[in-house]
Amino acid sequence: LPAKLPNTGTTIFTVMSALAADHGAVNLGQGFPDFGADPALLQRVTDAMAAGHNQYPPMAGVPALREAIAAKLNGVYGAAYDAGTDITVTAGGTQGLITALQACVGAGDEVIILEPAYDSYDPAIRLAGAVPVGVPMTLDYRIDWAAVRAAITPRTRALVLNTPHNPSGRVATRDDLLTLERLAEEHDLFIVSDEVYEHMVFDGQPHESVARYPRLRARSFLVSSFGKTFHVTGWKVGFVAAPPALTAAFRRLHQYTVFTVHTPTQHALAAYLADPAPWQGLSRFYQAKRDAFRAALAGTLLKLLPCEGTYFQTVDYSAVSALNELDFARWLTADVGVAAIPLSVFYQQPQERRHVRFCFAKRDETLALAASRLQAGL
Amino acid sequence: LPAKLPNTGTTIFTVMSALAADHGAVNLGQGFPDFGADPALLQRVTDAMAAGHNQYPPMAGVPALREAIAAKLNGVYGAAYDAGTDITVTAGGTQGLITALQACVGAGDEVIILEPAYDSYDPAIRLAGAVPVGVPMTLDYRIDWAAVRAAITPRTRALVLNTPHNPSGRVATRDDLLTLERLAEEHDLFIVSDEVYEHMVFDGQPHESVARYPRLRARSFLVSSFGKTFHVTGWKVGFVAAPPALTAAFRRLHQYTVFTVHTPTQHALAAYLADPAPWQGLSRFYQAKRDAFRAALAGTLLKLLPCEGTYFQTVDYSAVSALNELDFARWLTADVGVAAIPLSVFYQQPQERRHVRFCFAKRDETLALAASRLQAGL
Ligand SMILES: CSCCC(=O)C(=O)O
Ligand SMILES: CSCCC(=O)C(=O)O
Repeated sequence: LPAKLPNTGTTIFTVMSALAADHGAVNLGQGFPDFGADPALLQRVTDAMAAGHNQYPPMAGVPALREAIAAKLNGVYGAAYDAGTDITVTAGGTQGLITALQACVGAGDEVIILEPAYDSYDPAIRLAGAVPVGVPMTLDYRIDWAAVRAAITPRTRALVLNTPHNPSGRVATRDDLLTLERLAEEHDLFIVSDEVYEHMVFDGQPHESVARYPRLRARSFLVSSFGKTFHVTGWKVGFVAAPPALTAAFRRLHQYTVFTVHTPTQHALAAYLADPAPWQGLSRFYQAKRDAFRAALAGTLLKLLPCEGTYFQTVDYSAVSALNELDFARWLTADVGVAAIPLSVFYQQPQERRHVRFCFAKRDETLALAASRLQAGL
Repeated sequence: LPAKLPNTGTTIFTVMSALAADHGAVNLGQGFPDFGADPALLQRVTDAMAAGHNQYPPMAGVPALREAIAAKLNGVYGAAYDAGTDITVTAGGTQGLITALQACVGAGDEVIILEPAYDSYDPAIRLAGAVPVGVPMTLDYRIDWAAVRAAITPRTRALVLNTPHNPSGRVATRDDLLTLERLAEEHDLFIVSDEVYEHMVFDGQPHESVARYPRLRARSFLVSSFGKTFHVTGWKVGFVAAPPALTAAFRRLHQYTVFTVHTPTQHALAAYLADPAPWQGLSRFYQAKRDAFRAALAGTLLKLLPCEGTYFQTVDYSAVSALNELDFARWLTADVGVAAIPLSVFYQQPQERRHVRFCFAKRDETLALAASRLQAGL
């Protein structure tokens, strides 16, 4: 077989979840909640099925859901998206990302990704025929704009932004977005902006979406998802918002990639979005979990890095172990009984900062159990 | 934007469904049922959500569903698929097709498609970097093996089979499969076999799946879907069955294309597949609709072509009109009030056989209304 992705193994999330299961470890690796979704949302799916919404919806998505998405983006970010021409419902954030990249880059193009970079960006860019160019963030996980500038060549065609940032938990600032806007215009770049953690930003900071910046928005594919926001990571429904020309290119590919997305879930989400409380309360909900988890880890030798958003807490374990990150994560899973994700897998050039990531989208008991194992084991 | 698919417009199904809606036409164009699914299946989704199956399932699919799929394929076709290494749950047949093609062909490769060819094959092959080579079927929609042989070059790497065949309604025979097996071995081809209508084969004929032929199965991606079989085309859950090496290549791409598929629906299907009655009864169910629809059209000038499988009836309208197929389908939709799909759109080289396709996956009243409009209008 002609190996399309010769250097690509199985995603780290699958690997660590399997290892966690093998060892009965508390799985703080792969990011997903271990608590239930809102029964009212589940009921909406049941209602949609009973109402007969089980056949193909329009290719771009159920109109009511696209309307709800556009209204929310326009309301929250002061954007001006049109449900008809600018919004496409996707089979989760992953499909939104790969299809957006295929829509805007091709053979010979370079695409800048900011490292540590979520592990689907690199293969998605390669599958589009382009070359991913990894630019490491600073040591405290801010975007290194000097390094970004230095990496731009005449072949650079796009940049993948991710804020709130997985795995580091950093959020981009207004200055970051303004710098990006200038750079993107100067070098005529497309932006693929992964904002799936848009509703998890802490300590009163705003989420700086590309949707807030009209000139940036004009050249961006905003990718988001409902899985994280509504505690249903397995539902795989997201969306891409982009101006008409970008959306037209996106849909041309989307229609032959998945054609369309689970109809009853789309109807359910359309109805559920009418109430802003669930997503408006999400930052507060996760901030409490972050604070509790950080407090519980305060007694260990793990150094807690800043966590401004997402449901991930990154720690520096260099006071505990000299193992490399992958080996440390394996040891932690097998011997301490807590699974984590090594950050080293998110770089093109091996980096070893002795950092691993824990997911705190877990019940309080789960976090307490993990913390007690870490306290005992480290 | 670099147009990835410069000659690709909006899929004909979206175009004709929109036209049907505009004109209040009976929509016999896009293939989907206008009746409900089994309430027991819907209940299973509700049960799965309530049981908490709303987070990421394993990337390859819920194990119980993969087991059920393997058991069914092995039982029905005498195959030997392994649920662990050979089955991947996909976001519908479309995603199965594009990912299978990306897994086995690349730049410089040629892929043979049999025309009329379902409209996602051509762009899916191009997106994989390869070149689709259309080989028209015979005038009565049998595979023209002499033409296939003539089209094979040293660069031919794969062939897309589709049986039961959309749009023609023909089914491949045992001789077809044996010929394909020989050809595939002789020229070392991969087979991507679109069998989404596997449970709609009429008049006692068997469905000749690649899964029945061990040497063919060894080089095939079998693509199928639950949408058509269980009257839920909007659910977008299907699967790809292929030997371990092919599945490994498939999953490498699958994990970054959609990662995984709607969890509660996977659990629901796993439970629902325990009862063979729904899919075992499907051919009988659709054969009755086919017979009723054909009988109702017998009084018109439309010539009915053979319909051996699928839920599509193709007709020759040359006794009625000299319009080309696309114009005839538009006229039929706008003026007669019945939407159909022109077969001409499924060819690389313009073909005009004066054939259009009707979908008979409709309630008896819907088919009767369509037939009365056709009787009155033609
Ligand atoms: C697609 S599984 C990975 C989930 C996730 O986004 C993460 O853990 O970072
Ligand atoms: C993906 S929409 C088209 C449905 C279908 O398979 C058909 O009508 O042929």
